Amino acid sequence: MPDQLFPYQKLFEFTKAIFQKIGCSNEHAETAARSLVSADCRGIDSHGVARLTGYIRLWEVKRVNATPEIKIIHETPSTAVVDGDSGLGLVVAPYAMRVAINKAKQVGTGWVSVQNSNHFGIAAQHAMLALDHDMIGIAMTNASSLVAPTFSIDKMLGTNPICVAAPAGKEPPFVADLATTTAANGKLEILQRKNSPAPNGWIQDKDGNPSNDPHELKKGGALLPLGGDREHGSHKGYALGAIVDIFSALLSGANYAPWVPPFPAYVPIPSQQPGKGIGHFFGAMRIDAFRPTDEFKNHMDHWIQGFRNAKTIPGEERVLVPGDPEREVEIERMRMGIPIGDVVAKDLKKLAEKFEILF
Amino acid sequence: MPDQLFPYQKLFEFTKAIFQKIGCSNEHAETAARSLVSADCRGIDSHGVARLTGYIRLWEVKRVNATPEIKIIHETPSTAVVDGDSGLGLVVAPYAMRVAINKAKQVGTGWVSVQNSNHFGIAAQHAMLALDHDMIGIAMTNASSLVAPTFSIDKMLGTNPICVAAPAGKEPPFVADLATTTAANGKLEILQRKNSPAPNGWIQDKDGNPSNDPHELKKGGALLPLGGDREHGSHKGYALGAIVDIFSALLSGANYAPWVPPFPAYVPIPSQQPGKGIGHFFGAMRIDAFRPTDEFKNHMDHWIQGFRNAKTIPGEERVLVPGDPEREVEIERMRMGIPIGDVVAKDLKKLAEKFEILF
Repeated sequence: MPDQLFPYQKLFEFTKAIFQKIGCSNEHAETAARSLVSADCRGIDSHGVARLTGYIRLWEVKRVNATPEIKIIHETPSTAVVDGDSGLGLVVAPYAMRVAINKAKQVGTGWVSVQNSNHFGIAAQHAMLALDHDMIGIAMTNASSLVAPTFSIDKMLGTNPICVAAPAGKEPPFVADLATTTAANGKLEILQRKNSPAPNGWIQDKDGNPSNDPHELKKGGALLPLGGDREHGSHKGYALGAIVDIFSALLSGANYAPWVPPFPAYVPIPSQQPGKGIGHFFGAMRIDAFRPTDEFKNHMDHWIQGFRNAKTIPGEERVLVPGDPEREVEIERMRMGIPIGDVVAKDLKKLAEKFEILF
Repeated sequence: MPDQLFPYQKLFEFTKAIFQKIGCSNEHAETAARSLVSADCRGIDSHGVARLTGYIRLWEVKRVNATPEIKIIHETPSTAVVDGDSGLGLVVAPYAMRVAINKAKQVGTGWVSVQNSNHFGIAAQHAMLALDHDMIGIAMTNASSLVAPTFSIDKMLGTNPICVAAPAGKEPPFVADLATTTAANGKLEILQRKNSPAPNGWIQDKDGNPSNDPHELKKGGALLPLGGDREHGSHKGYALGAIVDIFSALLSGANYAPWVPPFPAYVPIPSQQPGKGIGHFFGAMRIDAFRPTDEFKNHMDHWIQGFRNAKTIPGEERVLVPGDPEREVEIERMRMGIPIGDVVAKDLKKLAEKFEILF
């Protein structure tokens, strides 16, 4: 069955209604729906409404608090630690990013580490909140452990993404949003559905041997850090994932390393919990805290045009600038609708029935 | 001929004397020598005294100013832009890092972007200055373009390294220092000397085809971003290198992308110079601007021990924590001496003769 196309507004209203049904305030439901559906818009289907049921299940087992009292528990002029009170990361993250932006307005930059949160959707959605303020936005999060560090069999880190968004002038903004693994889990899921082999360097089996079986994770295997193996720089991907963990959880007091609570509600929380919930980290840097904004933007335009005009390798039409693919998908989907696969559509219908709302 | 072993102090004094001979003040010569020889100590031989002749040549062609007036040209409570006045990056970087540390003392964090500088040695040396202050240190720099972004034939970025250093308690600090390429240029140079093939994903030829020829760079080829190719995540390595360029040069007003001046003095500066010199970026985050330092350090110890105790893949003895290999080399070399190869030893002898000092 071909994917059905849904207008953004319909998915947004539906998602908002579901979040209201579990008790979220109007404002929180709107924020959460905007965070979530932004992933579908930008083509990151694995992180969009496909996960709505997952969030609801976390609420059902009382691991998500629908009415959190999100608050700053420690701060200095340029920093804060936010306690998410077990709220949806989709709501906690924009709150924390706003704190970072407000601090940047005051003292040039703002840096916020978050404890006691849950999965926040895609990092880009939060980092990009800085763009309207002529700031560079940074967002990262830890996640439950699927990734084996270089030389390790044990899964010690999540896919721990990093996003940096920087404004340009006439050109669209630079938005780099990357999992610190060779391939994001969502890409592996696509291969699983097709039963296609995974490329070298994506995964290893339960004994730490390289594998091309896309189902390896279910058999005790692990995702590999960006680089794949030592010879190809996996120690760098591992280090980047570790940095995300330190900024997100060690600075905030959240859980870290293999002790981060998993997203699927049926997977038990690790018995050892050195911190609270999962951790995020946000930054905002005011451009004019460094140099005049128009000078920066002119140079960003020049930078971007330089990359766009670079000569391409055989068989490729153009060199992309980080953010190009997602923006192009977004333009297309806002015009034509968001394609939703059969499985996800059925999932959403079930949610609609359970909560007695229309879909 | 086997490598000769030199005590740290001898290399330090010699390097300091050379820098004094070109006109550096006693203080600058000491700082520069400490920055440079720290690379040899930590086993990053490509960035240590092997480059001393290179720095001197830059001074000879008037691209390095031995008596720079390094100064802050713009600032807010948490940010600054530093003008390096064409000084040695080895001196400019510690100055800028100190500015970041002092701002962190005042408002929690400090962030400094630097223009008009030169090659700064290894990033770790500067980031680690934060550790003594119970701060996380961050250092990055752009560099002349050797790296082709995903799908590009043109070399648009340098190897643009990122370093993050975080203090622990009983455990030694976490220090991740990584070029955003699959392999640092220094590793390729080792293969060139042995005439050994380079692994897949390290380099491409002048037409953008994958290559294993370690001499490819001299023939118009390029280093590849961490990941190697699109299927293995090279767009992520490319994005990371781009982020370093934006923070280091677009925020400061230094040159960026393919317009960064090259390190070898015989390579002409690109005719287009949109900024000044090369750019760096430094950050310092006070731990207790987020949470009590002892809590953080206890959790860092727990984190590090968790990784050390992870089960290893077949054939490997242990899982390393970022910073382990360099620290172990440093302990060994401070005790046994620093091995200097024949070519570099001859180079240093020539410098000694030229400046009429003992070596």
